[in-house]
Amino acid sequence: MNYKSRQSQLRSTLQRKHVDALLVTHLPNVRYLCGFTGSAGVLIVAESTAVFFTDGRYKEQAAEEIEGARVVIGKKSALAQSGEWLNAKAKQLGVKILGLEAEHATVAEKSQLRRALGSTPRLRETFGLVEQARMIKDREEIACLRAAVQLGASLFDVVLQAIRPGRKEVEVAAELEYAARRAGAEGMSFETIIASGPRSALPHGRASAAQIPANGFVVCDFGIILAGYCSDMTRTVHVGAPSSDAHHMYDSVREAQKAAVERVEAGVGAGEVDWAARQLLTRNGLGKYFSHSTGHGVGLQIHEPPRVARGQSEPLETGMVITIEPGVYLPQIGGVRIEDMVLVTDHGCEVLTPTSKELVVI
Amino acid sequence: MNYKSRQSQLRSTLQRKHVDALLVTHLPNVRYLCGFTGSAGVLIVAESTAVFFTDGRYKEQAAEEIEGARVVIGKKSALAQSGEWLNAKAKQLGVKILGLEAEHATVAEKSQLRRALGSTPRLRETFGLVEQARMIKDREEIACLRAAVQLGASLFDVVLQAIRPGRKEVEVAAELEYAARRAGAEGMSFETIIASGPRSALPHGRASAAQIPANGFVVCDFGIILAGYCSDMTRTVHVGAPSSDAHHMYDSVREAQKAAVERVEAGVGAGEVDWAARQLLTRNGLGKYFSHSTGHGVGLQIHEPPRVARGQSEPLETGMVITIEPGVYLPQIGGVRIEDMVLVTDHGCEVLTPTSKELVVI
Repeated sequence: MNYKSRQSQLRSTLQRKHVDALLVTHLPNVRYLCGFTGSAGVLIVAESTAVFFTDGRYKEQAAEEIEGARVVIGKKSALAQSGEWLNAKAKQLGVKILGLEAEHATVAEKSQLRRALGSTPRLRETFGLVEQARMIKDREEIACLRAAVQLGASLFDVVLQAIRPGRKEVEVAAELEYAARRAGAEGMSFETIIASGPRSALPHGRASAAQIPANGFVVCDFGIILAGYCSDMTRTVHVGAPSSDAHHMYDSVREAQKAAVERVEAGVGAGEVDWAARQLLTRNGLGKYFSHSTGHGVGLQIHEPPRVARGQSEPLETGMVITIEPGVYLPQIGGVRIEDMVLVTDHGCEVLTPTSKELVVI
Repeated sequence: MNYKSRQSQLRSTLQRKHVDALLVTHLPNVRYLCGFTGSAGVLIVAESTAVFFTDGRYKEQAAEEIEGARVVIGKKSALAQSGEWLNAKAKQLGVKILGLEAEHATVAEKSQLRRALGSTPRLRETFGLVEQARMIKDREEIACLRAAVQLGASLFDVVLQAIRPGRKEVEVAAELEYAARRAGAEGMSFETIIASGPRSALPHGRASAAQIPANGFVVCDFGIILAGYCSDMTRTVHVGAPSSDAHHMYDSVREAQKAAVERVEAGVGAGEVDWAARQLLTRNGLGKYFSHSTGHGVGLQIHEPPRVARGQSEPLETGMVITIEPGVYLPQIGGVRIEDMVLVTDHGCEVLTPTSKELVVI
C-alpha cells in the first residue's frame, strides 16, 4: 500500500484546515496511513514527520508492518507516549495546533492528552479527515476489495447447500463461517444474518436457534474479511413454493436494486440512488416497508462513508465502493433484501458481486 | 437478570458522587443495566426513573429485551434523543448534574450532547461507575459464566483432534469455531490464538497460515460467548517429543499458574496474585520471559476490571471472576501459557475451567 502518498494527501488536508499535525487514534485510520494491524497504537502525522507509538507487545509486529512512519516502543500507553513526545517536540516541529479525531477519541483520552501536552500545542477537534480520503479507494484497495468480494461470494453455494427446512439458522451460519475460515478469510465482517420465515422481516435478524420453516423467505446477509478489507452481500432465497405475493415482493426488490445500481455514477448524489430504489418500491405498493437506507461505503470497515440514504446530496465519486441493498419487510410475514457491492466509475458503476439475483427456490 | 437491583446500586453510587443522573452510552453497561443487546441505544438512569432511547430498527427487540426502563423509539440517534429529552425534563426530575461516561463517550458526542442540553444540566465526567459494579458478578451472572466456561472447555477436544503437524493454524481455528457455533455459541469472545512452533513465543499469535511443525509447542487460547458472557482459556500442547528444556518451561508455567490460583482469595491484593506467579517463574530462571500480566476480569466483555497485574493493590472481592494466565515466551524458540477462569470466594477461589493441565503430547 502506498502509505507515503496517503500521508501526503492528509498533510494537504491538514494545511487547508490550519492544523499542524493530526493525532490519529482510530485504528482503521492508523492502518490506512501506516499499515499497523494491531489493537493498540497511535500515529502522529506532522508536516515533516510521521511517528507511530505502541507498547512492547507489538514490537515485532510493528517492525514488520509499519511503513512510512518511525516506530516508538514504550512502557506507557501509546496515547501517553504520544502526548509526552509532542510536549517535548512540538516547538521544534512547529506544531501549534494539534488535531484530535473528535468522533473517536474519548472524553477521558482528551483530558489525559491535555495534561500530557501542557499549554502547547492547542487541541482542535477534527471530523472525518482520514475517513474522507478513505472513501475513494486506490488501486491496491480496489484489488483487495475485489478479492474479498470474490471469496465472500464463493461461499453462497455453501449457504445454499446448508439451507433445509428444519435446520437451525445458526447451523447454516456455522457451515458458512467454517467454509470462510477454511478458504482463508480472517474472519466475518459482521455477525452473519440468516433470518428465515417471519424472522426475515427483521432487517438485523442475526442467525438464531430458530428452525428454517417449510415455506418462506430466508435472508442471507454475510461478509468476510480478507487482508483487512470487508465484503458484504445479501441474497434472499425461498424455501418451498413461493406464493404470488412472495414473487411480487422478490421481483419488486430485485427491480429496485437494479434501478439503484443503474443510477450510480460519479457526480450523482447518493440520495438520488436511494431515491431510485425507493420510488420503484413505492410504485409497487411496498415503499413503506423499505425501512432502512439503500447502502453504505465498505472498505477497512464494514460501514464507512458515504451513506447512500434519503436526502444525501453529496455526489458519488469515482473509486468509491458502496453497497446497494434495498429491502422490503412485512412484519410477522417475511422480508426480502438483495445486496451487491459496486465500484463507482466515471460513467456508471461496476457491480463487484458476481452472484446471480434470480430467485433460488429450495 | 435483576436489572432493578443493579439500577438501585448505581443510584446509590451516583448519590455518593453527587451526580443526579447518569447517561449510559457504553453498550455492555447498557446491557448490564436493562438487558438491551442491540448495537444502538442510550440509557439514562435518574433518581426516580430509567429511560432507554433507540431508533426504529430496534423497536421489536427493545420491547422484548428491556426490563426496568421505559423505552423511547425515535427518528434521531439515541444520543440526540436523550439530550433533547433531558433538556425538557431535567428541571422536573431535579437533574442538575449529569454524569457522562468519560472513558466511552467520544469528544464529538460530548459536544453534541452539550448543544442538545443547553445550559442545564451540567455535565460531569465519570469513570467506571458501572464497571465497578460489574466486577462483582451476581448469582445469575455466575451461572452464565459457568455455562460459557463449560461450553468453551468442551471444545478443547476438537482442538486436540485438529492439531497435526503440517496443518495450518487457521484450519485448527476453523474446526474449533465451527464446533463452537454448532454447540450454540453466539460467537468467539476474541480472535482465536493458535500459535505453533516459534510463533508460540508471540503472546498474541492469532491463528495464521503457518503450518504446525513436527516438533514444538502450540499455544491454544480461545473463548466463546454464550448468553452474552465470555469464556477464556489457554492450554499449551506439544507436538512431537518435548525436550528437557520444553518440560522445564511447561512445568514452570504450570507451577506458577498453580501458585497464583492458590493465592487468590477475597481481601488479597490482585498484585499479590500476580507476584505469586512471577516469583515462581523467577525462581526457575524464567521470570524475565513472563512479559505480560497474570490476568483480568471476564464477564460481558472479555477484558474487564480488575487487572491482575504487578503493583495492583486493590483487594480481590468475593464474586469476582478473573483469569489466571501466566506465560513464558522465548523469542524465536517458543512459548507456554496456561489459563483458567476462577471465581473469587471468601476463603480462596473456585477454578471454573475443568480441563486438565497435564502436558498433552501429540
